Amino acid sequence: MLSRNKANYLISLQKKKTRDQERLYVIEGDKLVREFLIARAPVVTLVAKPEFLNSIPLMQKQGIDEIIPVSYDDLKKISSLKSPHNALAVIRMPENIINFSDLIKGLTIALDCVQDPGNLGTIIRAAGWFGIRKIYCSEDCVDLYNPKVIQSSMGAILHVSVFYTALHSLFESAQESKIKIYGALIKGESIYTRKLSTNGIILLGNESKGISEELIPYITDRIMIPKLTDESPGIDSLNVSMAASVILSEFTRSRGREV
Amino acid sequence: MLSRNKANYLISLQKKKTRDQERLYVIEGDKLVREFLIARAPVVTLVAKPEFLNSIPLMQKQGIDEIIPVSYDDLKKISSLKSPHNALAVIRMPENIINFSDLIKGLTIALDCVQDPGNLGTIIRAAGWFGIRKIYCSEDCVDLYNPKVIQSSMGAILHVSVFYTALHSLFESAQESKIKIYGALIKGESIYTRKLSTNGIILLGNESKGISEELIPYITDRIMIPKLTDESPGIDSLNVSMAASVILSEFTRSRGREV
Repeated sequence: MLSRNKANYLISLQKKKTRDQERLYVIEGDKLVREFLIARAPVVTLVAKPEFLNSIPLMQKQGIDEIIPVSYDDLKKISSLKSPHNALAVIRMPENIINFSDLIKGLTIALDCVQDPGNLGTIIRAAGWFGIRKIYCSEDCVDLYNPKVIQSSMGAILHVSVFYTALHSLFESAQESKIKIYGALIKGESIYTRKLSTNGIILLGNESKGISEELIPYITDRIMIPKLTDESPGIDSLNVSMAASVILSEFTRSRGREV
Repeated sequence: MLSRNKANYLISLQKKKTRDQERLYVIEGDKLVREFLIARAPVVTLVAKPEFLNSIPLMQKQGIDEIIPVSYDDLKKISSLKSPHNALAVIRMPENIINFSDLIKGLTIALDCVQDPGNLGTIIRAAGWFGIRKIYCSEDCVDLYNPKVIQSSMGAILHVSVFYTALHSLFESAQESKIKIYGALIKGESIYTRKLSTNGIILLGNESKGISEELIPYITDRIMIPKLTDESPGIDSLNVSMAASVILSEFTRSRGREV
């Protein structure tokens, strides 16, 4: 049974402020909850229909503080979705501490003021696919634990660490270690012809304003996705998550590590 | 002034049934409306705040049947957006008639049961960027004139023609003309290493089910975006619009027609 107090508490986790205070966030949906259980993620509370609970192996239930069987109507009350699924879980946030020495180990992504939750989620998903394990977000990016980010990341947040930090400090550390910073700009060298290295930071900017003025000087390599200008009048930009997918694909291809 | 009748009529265009009967659809947002005006698209009705109307050159107003200055509150009543912009316009649908001989002229896209409006809009936007001018949708794809499709296409629907048709008939015509049908599948040849031709049809499937069983036999070339499997446990798919962006980028690159 879901008490009124518990229901209110779960709803309060839809707010960033409460999530940050409690260091907890919520995931929804059968598939996502199952993935988190299988990955042995730190599930604090599992709220689900009895059928769902019965389908979970006993082993995966171990370590969960609280398991609450509920009706569909109860789930609907606490869900952030229009049509809730059969399960919802509260997860403990990881302690993501930036280790600057990670920067030299491979490719990472930096996001400057990405605002749309769907875009952040999709970029995390693309990062997961292309084997990137670390994303650095400027502090004004949308919150990682926003329900829409989690929904569109499709479980990739289990595998990709996302950090919020002042990007200029990060870039100063990168400079000291001579790490390349690839900035995705309207004008740059074509990603199709430019040599792309196997480590470095790929910097992507805000949906409408692009990369902030103050970060531009840190860019060591200006890159762009060529547009077939003559044939595309009026189409002036790619969505940032599409750009991320295309750029990550190009880095992957040029690494020659295809499966 | 916006009469109650007119307001109800504009709201009724949010429904596919009414749009199809009237052969009209609605676009919203200053940027989008301006783009349509500049492109001399068939604007039937323009509903906007007086400031917006004053900013439109006289020439662009010619040919519009009806121009209605409104208050923000009136706009809010008829808008499909939570926070309406300053302008909304009713557009006449183009008469898109499939010309099978177009199939041999270059690359086109076929979408099988793509359901999410954001995905269709994003694919249209990517198509626009990469110079693709024709998209064939199965009849169970989301409606092109769904407000969310238009919003996420960002004006690219001005430049890309979208047709709804039975894909198997289309593919039979393609077969007769020996046109390649590239199917994006979980298992296929890597797009990074496979030779990609400069014409053909790129077939993408439904968000969760992929390409329908009955369309598989028409595929002449099975392609896939390689995943770094060893490093990406649990990440089992790319979103269809990300996949489209990556595949279109690869076709563009291999055409060697970069700017």
